[in-house]
Amino acid sequence: MPFIEIHLDQALFDEKRAQISKQIHQAQIDVLGVPATDLFQVFTPHGEGEIVFDPTHNGVDRRSLMAIRVTIVHNQPGAVKKALYKGLLERLETIGIRRDDVEIVVVENGFDDWYVGRL
Amino acid sequence: MPFIEIHLDQALFDEKRAQISKQIHQAQIDVLGVPATDLFQVFTPHGEGEIVFDPTHNGVDRRSLMAIRVTIVHNQPGAVKKALYKGLLERLETIGIRRDDVEIVVVENGFDDWYVGRL
Amino acid sequence: MPFIEIHLDQALFDEKRAQISKQIHQAQIDVLGVPATDLFQVFTPHGEGEIVFDPTHNGVDRRSLMAIRVTIVHNQPGAVKKALYKGLLERLETIGIRRDDVEIVVVENGFDDWYVGRL
Repeated sequence: MPFIEIHLDQALFDEKRAQISKQIHQAQIDVLGVPATDLFQVFTPHGEGEIVFDPTHNGVDRRSLMAIRVTIVHNQPGAVKKALYKGLLERLETIGIRRDDVEIVVVENGFDDWYVGRL
Repeated sequence: MPFIEIHLDQALFDEKRAQISKQIHQAQIDVLGVPATDLFQVFTPHGEGEIVFDPTHNGVDRRSLMAIRVTIVHNQPGAVKKALYKGLLERLETIGIRRDDVEIVVVENGFDDWYVGRL
Repeated sequence: MPFIEIHLDQALFDEKRAQISKQIHQAQIDVLGVPATDLFQVFTPHGEGEIVFDPTHNGVDRRSLMAIRVTIVHNQPGAVKKALYKGLLERLETIGIRRDDVEIVVVENGFDDWYVGRL
């Protein structure tokens, strides 16, 4: 039951929304082994000045920022989360999104913190 | 001090925003016993392609998706959270929002994780 | 690696976005001691009816609401978080944002819950 929120520039959303959605979803399937139907993504496109970042923080060459928030049940070891980041970055790279331009933030919760269609 | 974020289709927001706000708030009052003044909701209406979901995941008939994020202090047992989901779904149903079209995601924090008017 | 999400009225964003960004960032630097380059903010401006609040909850005179979500690694004692709220409120006050009109919600995660440019 990952819940994925994506903050990105309006232009990038307009141009590649379907591809971004697909690649993020596929990384999640590949790494977490969730069913292909487990798809809950919310994109929020942003206008000028809404996404604020430093171009060099952490020693990279950051030119824009796509922030991916992942809310997920607390049962993944750190290695799996790292594999998820790697999978997301590699897949986004195939559609022209530079890994320096991505931020991923995970927040975990419990199994009883979800309603997704069945009580 | 629940903080409620609602992601929903722009058309649904335009049509029913006041009713949705009221029903969500009332469910929270009924189940959690918080004061009626404890009201902090942020609606983000979304355009086409921004909310992405699978129509059948979890064996339901999902036609659209309203995602409700609840941030709340970690002092509610699982049974209360389940009662909250039930209350939210029943109340939203009274204004024509199908329970299959709702997702609820809870994230918990601590008492010192809030500023709501008083230090 | 704080990740800061700011929900605010469109008019306030239009008028003061650069100042708000700067003051929030400076409070974070002053209190948390993070590098000046550690800047990850996402502003979401909202239209009429999207931000819903009670004008008196907690005994204050609330006229509008700017909700600041802070996602941060779980290694700050409560006193530091309180100092952060104080710093944010004092700095926002210098640019005309009343402390009664601010809500701050912190959610914590772990060190392995972030990708910010380097795996």
